[in-house]
Amino acid sequence: MRTKIVQGLLGCAMMMAIPAGAQIPAGMAPGSLGRNDPMPIRPDYMRTRAVISPVIHPDRRVTFRLNAPEATDVRLTGHVIGAKMHWLSPERTLPMTKGADGVWSITLGPLEPEIYPYSYMVNGAGVSDPGNRINLVEVPGDKPAYYDPQDVPHGDVRMVVYHSKATNSVRYLRVYTPPGYDESKQRYPVLYLQHGGNCCEYSWMEQARANTILDNLIAEKKARPMIVVMALGARSGPSEGLGPVPSQREGFKPPPGRQSNYDPGNLFEVDLLTGIIPFIDRKFRTLANADNRALSGLSQGGIQTVTIGLRHTDVFHWLVPMSAGAENQGDDQFMKISEDIFANPEPLKKNLKLLHFLVGREDVLYEPDKRLAEKLQSLGVKLTFQALPGMHEYKVWRRGLYETAPLLFR
Amino acid sequence: MRTKIVQGLLGCAMMMAIPAGAQIPAGMAPGSLGRNDPMPIRPDYMRTRAVISPVIHPDRRVTFRLNAPEATDVRLTGHVIGAKMHWLSPERTLPMTKGADGVWSITLGPLEPEIYPYSYMVNGAGVSDPGNRINLVEVPGDKPAYYDPQDVPHGDVRMVVYHSKATNSVRYLRVYTPPGYDESKQRYPVLYLQHGGNCCEYSWMEQARANTILDNLIAEKKARPMIVVMALGARSGPSEGLGPVPSQREGFKPPPGRQSNYDPGNLFEVDLLTGIIPFIDRKFRTLANADNRALSGLSQGGIQTVTIGLRHTDVFHWLVPMSAGAENQGDDQFMKISEDIFANPEPLKKNLKLLHFLVGREDVLYEPDKRLAEKLQSLGVKLTFQALPGMHEYKVWRRGLYETAPLLFR
Repeated sequence: MRTKIVQGLLGCAMMMAIPAGAQIPAGMAPGSLGRNDPMPIRPDYMRTRAVISPVIHPDRRVTFRLNAPEATDVRLTGHVIGAKMHWLSPERTLPMTKGADGVWSITLGPLEPEIYPYSYMVNGAGVSDPGNRINLVEVPGDKPAYYDPQDVPHGDVRMVVYHSKATNSVRYLRVYTPPGYDESKQRYPVLYLQHGGNCCEYSWMEQARANTILDNLIAEKKARPMIVVMALGARSGPSEGLGPVPSQREGFKPPPGRQSNYDPGNLFEVDLLTGIIPFIDRKFRTLANADNRALSGLSQGGIQTVTIGLRHTDVFHWLVPMSAGAENQGDDQFMKISEDIFANPEPLKKNLKLLHFLVGREDVLYEPDKRLAEKLQSLGVKLTFQALPGMHEYKVWRRGLYETAPLLFR
Repeated sequence: MRTKIVQGLLGCAMMMAIPAGAQIPAGMAPGSLGRNDPMPIRPDYMRTRAVISPVIHPDRRVTFRLNAPEATDVRLTGHVIGAKMHWLSPERTLPMTKGADGVWSITLGPLEPEIYPYSYMVNGAGVSDPGNRINLVEVPGDKPAYYDPQDVPHGDVRMVVYHSKATNSVRYLRVYTPPGYDESKQRYPVLYLQHGGNCCEYSWMEQARANTILDNLIAEKKARPMIVVMALGARSGPSEGLGPVPSQREGFKPPPGRQSNYDPGNLFEVDLLTGIIPFIDRKFRTLANADNRALSGLSQGGIQTVTIGLRHTDVFHWLVPMSAGAENQGDDQFMKISEDIFANPEPLKKNLKLLHFLVGREDVLYEPDKRLAEKLQSLGVKLTFQALPGMHEYKVWRRGLYETAPLLFR
């Protein structure tokens, strides 16, 4: 009886472990709960049982492991593999080696201290690490990094339920309130900070630790205390599971001229200007004017920064597009918006307090970003341009926030 | 040039899509950005490109789809498949069918309106849906469900950075503050609500919509406005990516007598009683006494509720263990703790205002839960016991919160 219940318990853990993952320590039989009994668990529970992965070695090598005895081809992918992950490289995976126990593994490094995304390809399909659902590994250095949570006052990040008329959906906004917000009567400037095309309003926390970066900058008085608003950028996909997803209803048609999942600015532009900003200014103690309002974002969020921001310099006086590449993308919507701006650059010259382009030096969007910046400069618009080491990846954007937040609201 | 940049852009989207996923509408060539050009994208980008999935039909059938042309065996798993997902059933997957386009699919239903978890098995490895990273599908009914966000005042859920001395880690607490919290000077009772063994402090929001359930109950005056604290229950795995994970450091050894990832109460007990509760009582406007403090949780969180809660009736006067099965688990720690309680049930009789067991009728833990409840009753402890339709699954716990939050602090 005892064995049966133990089996049941572990079964429970494993059932729910696909793919979120319950970690079973390496070498420990699932079903044993720390004991040395024979395993009562059925083989099919075993198939995706998690092993400890990744394992970080003291010399900053990292071993990635996946238990996949039935697979015939398992590979490591993600920016952790380095330059191969450049999208112009012919292969963006590294082969892993199968052990006698059915666990595939690969060891990389030593790696520079950094937070790296990774995942697996099992017979051609992308797979999360069952033991590490967010698929990030931080290789620590000798001391805490600028993005690590330090012993300083911390702001909170609020999940705020937001009924969006423009997109006809209910979503979360994530709102960082700086340390001391609750205790003060103070009003704060606001940075609207947008994620990329692949994910969600929580990406800046999950992938980039935007909140702890700001905590650290504010503690060092390098950045002004500010509110940061992170909204879901008009994607149709779910964020943290709030309500059904319109694009998944049979018969769903995206609005004319738009794809279901890619909106280069217009829907989100309406939502941001007529919905989100007024809502935030009601709900939080903001300094509700353009001098105290910034817009930034990465990749798709960078596109939103130049398309929305450059057209609304009465709303935002601070713009930091990251890896936008919004010019020369072969998308008529962007070009049309850009033409308006090129034809009448006066509001930009008059209103903007900061226009700062930031992009990875190895990003294929480096050149398009540079061309857009040069075009604007040729029209007399003042701007700055910063390239950081890296590709189209969070390493650049994480550092980018750290470098650019101190420039805002000065 | 234009084609090359388009290729680059999409490459970017797809690189980051593994496994988080960028949705490409079904039948649309990736690389075309809505145009009908030939696809410039390389075959390896194609391998895991997302299709729209799941597709919800008007008759409440649901079609699940995965693009995996190189796979030889693709299956659907998760509680969406119904009774087969019971952990005592011999097979907990349904085979999917491969189409000529390399997309595997299966259609289920009609399904009852509900939120269902699902995922795929590709050649034996657990795989997220690339188009739906959280792997939940809500089948909507004719009107909003009790867990859907309604047009009522909403509370916020804060991600609060917490430095845990007991576990030597930095973590997030999630704290639900009820509607009106910011505007009032009121103090509120607190429910500590724990996740299960497979995930994290955000599970109650992501999987169960704890916050919108409470919003709805509070708006209907069925539940008292309360603060809800959701902590990471002493797991060593990462939650939303805050800091390195000790168990992943080479040479990591769990504390004596404990596994690295499964702590039945002690570490978390110390953290909760000496760290988290005092921290919450400092940071939030709580009613900081046992009459206004409840403990609940599901599965592992249910175990924590009976092990910690029954031993600390000076701290919690309201206990709602869900699917705990903490008796007869074959784990000596639980039995030892239970022996203490059985030997001296007087504090339970004297202090507890509510002890309410809740479990799925088809849960294999139903019987153990019932035995524990009967044992306590035989010792003169007053309690209630509620069984809901379902297995060891969020369907039960989501409904469980809806049923039990109104019982608290009355």
